[in-house]
Amino acid sequence: MPARPKKRPKSYHHGDLRNALLKAAREVLEERGPSFVGLREISRRVGVSAPSAYHHFPSRDAIALGLAEQGAREMAECLAVSSRDERGTLAPYGEAYVAFVRANPALYRLMFGEGFPAVSQYSQAMRDLRKRSYDIMKSNLEKKLSDAELPAAGLFLWALVHGLGLLLIDGQVVPGKDRKDIVHRVLQLAGTGLGDARA
Amino acid sequence: MPARPKKRPKSYHHGDLRNALLKAAREVLEERGPSFVGLREISRRVGVSAPSAYHHFPSRDAIALGLAEQGAREMAECLAVSSRDERGTLAPYGEAYVAFVRANPALYRLMFGEGFPAVSQYSQAMRDLRKRSYDIMKSNLEKKLSDAELPAAGLFLWALVHGLGLLLIDGQVVPGKDRKDIVHRVLQLAGTGLGDARA
Repeated sequence: MPARPKKRPKSYHHGDLRNALLKAAREVLEERGPSFVGLREISRRVGVSAPSAYHHFPSRDAIALGLAEQGAREMAECLAVSSRDERGTLAPYGEAYVAFVRANPALYRLMFGEGFPAVSQYSQAMRDLRKRSYDIMKSNLEKKLSDAELPAAGLFLWALVHGLGLLLIDGQVVPGKDRKDIVHRVLQLAGTGLGDARA
Repeated sequence: MPARPKKRPKSYHHGDLRNALLKAAREVLEERGPSFVGLREISRRVGVSAPSAYHHFPSRDAIALGLAEQGAREMAECLAVSSRDERGTLAPYGEAYVAFVRANPALYRLMFGEGFPAVSQYSQAMRDLRKRSYDIMKSNLEKKLSDAELPAAGLFLWALVHGLGLLLIDGQVVPGKDRKDIVHRVLQLAGTGLGDARA
């Protein structure tokens, strides 16, 4: 038998229920992983019937898309704040990027399709995030690089912070006590390169 | 009712059956994804009973571990070959790394825990791969960098190729007709850095 809500169903305004369901879905995602994100679990947590939740999210993919959009918007805000840093380098952008990944590991993986392959491609918020991310990089680099060099430079920087964030949250890197410091040093290398990083 | 093998059970030598099961598991993984990798499906493909397969792989995690070890060994070989390149730079290593990821997308994701979180941590072959990968990088860079700089440089390069490979196989990058070329240009930036990559 399906689990029933333990509490008496609550009443919500339309937008409030959607937000409450997304909040519950995000908790389930970070606590238990993508395979546990489902209508029954999140409606139970919020204390409403499954049909009420279904009205907002008719499928698991719909929940995942809602989460990816929320994550993409939050991440875009974090990156935008970092770009106003006065040092005028890309290290604050990289640090903000990696910090977001580490604060939201399961959400970040979902945004890139883990468990929900369709999410990343169909999400307008993810497309906006990619564009926003590229624009920040571009505004920093266009004084130094030609237009023809910008796409490779953008991909270089994105690949670096994407890979670094994932290696950290996947526990692949065994950091010393100076974990923050190693992120900073890796990002510095994006500026100097390996060939010129002599002691 | 569980699906039965359609063919009359075949007979295998011990090691042959293990290899045949792994081959089938790898096909299922790349064709259908990690959630379809299971004892019943692979024994059916190989044409043996599930108990015969169980003898070699008593759980889904055991299959995943076998796949991760196979992948890690193959990848270590690809990287070792690349390190004998005469140009003496790290671009061939990076190209070999990204080429392996693109040729084995689902296997690579599995090696890093997707669908099977325990795999990467418990696999001796994965530990060997990480060490081998670091050693190649180190032997290239130790003439240029001090010992204190090597860990950050190794993580920088690994994060870059890990991230680049994943962005490519996840379809996040919309490549032009010169996809191979953009990989090469991104890897060149690892040497020169963004700050010095002036036109």
